Amino acid sequence: MHLGLFLNGVGHHIAAWRDPAVQPNQVLAARFYADIARLAERGRFDMLFLADSNATFGPDDPAVWSRTGAALRLEPITLLSALAMVTDHIGLVSTATTTYSQPFSVARMFASLDHISGGRAGWNVVTSSATAEAYNFSHAAHPPHADRYVRAGEFIEVVQGLWDSWEDDALLYDQESGRMFDPAKLHFLDHKGPAFSVRGPLSLPRSPQGQPVIVEAGQSEAGRELAARTADVVFAVQQDIEEAIRLRADFRARAQRAGRAADAIRIMPGVLPVIGATQDEADAKLAAMQALIHPEIGVKTLSDLVGKDLSDYPLDGPLPDVPVTNTQQGRQRVVLDLARREGLSIRQLYMRVTGARAHRIIAGTPARIADELELWVREGAADGFNIMPLTFPDGLREFVDGVIPILQARGSFRREYAGTTLRDNLGLPVPPHRHAARAPEAAI
Amino acid sequence: MHLGLFLNGVGHHIAAWRDPAVQPNQVLAARFYADIARLAERGRFDMLFLADSNATFGPDDPAVWSRTGAALRLEPITLLSALAMVTDHIGLVSTATTTYSQPFSVARMFASLDHISGGRAGWNVVTSSATAEAYNFSHAAHPPHADRYVRAGEFIEVVQGLWDSWEDDALLYDQESGRMFDPAKLHFLDHKGPAFSVRGPLSLPRSPQGQPVIVEAGQSEAGRELAARTADVVFAVQQDIEEAIRLRADFRARAQRAGRAADAIRIMPGVLPVIGATQDEADAKLAAMQALIHPEIGVKTLSDLVGKDLSDYPLDGPLPDVPVTNTQQGRQRVVLDLARREGLSIRQLYMRVTGARAHRIIAGTPARIADELELWVREGAADGFNIMPLTFPDGLREFVDGVIPILQARGSFRREYAGTTLRDNLGLPVPPHRHAARAPEAAI
Repeated sequence: MHLGLFLNGVGHHIAAWRDPAVQPNQVLAARFYADIARLAERGRFDMLFLADSNATFGPDDPAVWSRTGAALRLEPITLLSALAMVTDHIGLVSTATTTYSQPFSVARMFASLDHISGGRAGWNVVTSSATAEAYNFSHAAHPPHADRYVRAGEFIEVVQGLWDSWEDDALLYDQESGRMFDPAKLHFLDHKGPAFSVRGPLSLPRSPQGQPVIVEAGQSEAGRELAARTADVVFAVQQDIEEAIRLRADFRARAQRAGRAADAIRIMPGVLPVIGATQDEADAKLAAMQALIHPEIGVKTLSDLVGKDLSDYPLDGPLPDVPVTNTQQGRQRVVLDLARREGLSIRQLYMRVTGARAHRIIAGTPARIADELELWVREGAADGFNIMPLTFPDGLREFVDGVIPILQARGSFRREYAGTTLRDNLGLPVPPHRHAARAPEAAI
Repeated sequence: MHLGLFLNGVGHHIAAWRDPAVQPNQVLAARFYADIARLAERGRFDMLFLADSNATFGPDDPAVWSRTGAALRLEPITLLSALAMVTDHIGLVSTATTTYSQPFSVARMFASLDHISGGRAGWNVVTSSATAEAYNFSHAAHPPHADRYVRAGEFIEVVQGLWDSWEDDALLYDQESGRMFDPAKLHFLDHKGPAFSVRGPLSLPRSPQGQPVIVEAGQSEAGRELAARTADVVFAVQQDIEEAIRLRADFRARAQRAGRAADAIRIMPGVLPVIGATQDEADAKLAAMQALIHPEIGVKTLSDLVGKDLSDYPLDGPLPDVPVTNTQQGRQRVVLDLARREGLSIRQLYMRVTGARAHRIIAGTPARIADELELWVREGAADGFNIMPLTFPDGLREFVDGVIPILQARGSFRREYAGTTLRDNLGLPVPPHRHAARAPEAAI
């Protein structure tokens, strides 16, 4: 079982910052995240994971937004670079958008983080979902879903090409002769495509893990096809084990159709654990947190998730019909399916999905949470999970001290790190260099 | 006197990597830079400084380039974020180009570094000088000098506007009422200009120093005008004290014409110290290093500096006429002036300017170097220096253990840090927030 720790300010629940045990003014303090990162490393997590947006997280209206804990956040690549210095083993995965970035810059940033961390970097590839991001990059409108995915595919191709600028034995450091490197083993990319023309090379060679790990999260048709070709890890949104089994099987089949091994991709759904000494205590903890969601926030956040303004509909009535949107199609479907399957009212639905932003919440004892995680892995619904603690640091500490030891005792999770890189943690091979002359046995 | 430490791989001299005392394979090791940063902090330097380019540093031809030590480098903002975690007082200044970046991204990165470091970030604003950078960002050609400066001015305006997204008392963290911030004290930028349309806000408030420090280096007419309006620090290229006095006086006059105080800008020329126990030892050390410059590199680097291919001219003949170029006009003039003033051959000129990339080299005992630095400050030629050690870490250690104690004993340099931010180190005030209602006495 692989475990990511999804960092998110002072907690994942949308009302976490209001918990009296939480210190919301620590949200920008690097030392706060350093303590969390070290705690996660004590728990032997595979990786830290950071989401990102180039606009405000959550509602666009400042008055509504001011009721969430999502107003402030450090830029993720700078934060992970800082955390690289206070950790030794844990992977460092950050989101960066393909919609409003340039592949040369993204390739450099992650290659640099990869070297700074000794081979622990991962890039969560996204297409921007918020129209507000367009307005921060001199665009009048947000490009359509399909166009964003075409650009994303070419973007990844350029980034991975730049990451292979140097063959692994290109560097000589020969002080005597004055040859720093072998120029025959340096490669200009000379990419010319519909969206990008990028010459290269990058001023950074490959790290101990060859290339940073590629993480993706899109569950739309376009997102699945891209992941089948390019992803090492998929951070999924799944509420239901049967659907998760189907999704994972689909990714495995698509990977094979793309010429890759069926197990080339680690499927890791998000899980928000709510941990109590008893089931009642866990349920009460979740209920107390849900009660802190202001209805204005609940309805607004649900509206953003489904892509339709729900503020004029009765709170205790059903969800109206919602057309497919230009925003996060995969997540939208999970929410709509849940509402249909369980016949939830708007209020019931926002209570279920707003707190964890559509991800699955499991409330229970450490043993029950361990059971649930193991069940999903055993049944083929997941290769691991992206853990989203209710609050930081308490929710994480409860998981590390409560759930992890049970998983370890049952042999479901590592007691020690096996290697030093993120690929080592995930059991992923070092990708061969595209230009290196390879003996047949080296072609994995 | 203010001192920056200019980081540059394993040394500033172009042949530094060939020095047998240097370990060139440490060039990408974060721990190597962490040790240097801590050493600089022990020496009470104001700040670390990192140059940048979005293309290869130095010659474009891989065979020539392979003879320099400039092939490999970490991306500077990730490196400084890492160094923020292992230092407490020293400023962290990185270059980022206005030519191929987006202001929203640059504003976020530096604001984030500023929070991670507790108020120690600085942004060295440049316009890209290498045509090769264009080819990495899907541009067929590099924009003209004048256009780059117009864009740079608007770029800074947007970045500084985004940095003031939040008034200093906007954040409430009121867990009881559920108000995270006062929406009336959050400001959308809504910038609409010729080059950029940026709505904002940034998800990062101001740091303890208000805004990151602005550093600039351009010495062309356009560069001086921009600095007069916007720079806190100018990293100058100066070989000659008389010219440096004129340059500093010019910046002071321009700052006043722009409505600022004459001493609003710290002028800090680059200096490469070569330190020996005796003058002879220092001279021999420099000569040994110069002898490691391969003529092919000398001519090629000089060609890049003056913007004309000199490989077909006799090494021991004079510099031919060179037209003003579209590259680094300020630096080009310093080199051409030096050649004219001292009647240097091509070989003599590359020996003088290639090693330190046109910056001034001072070879001598610690006392002589201290004398020279104090002379420039006393005569009004500088407010401080950007120190460029011959090699890392030895060249820095010699400066920290040799020159700094002399400056401290003479009362020319701090013994302890006065505050915690980069503005504290530089003696610069916290800029007032543009939207805050100010009592008259708060307007500095």
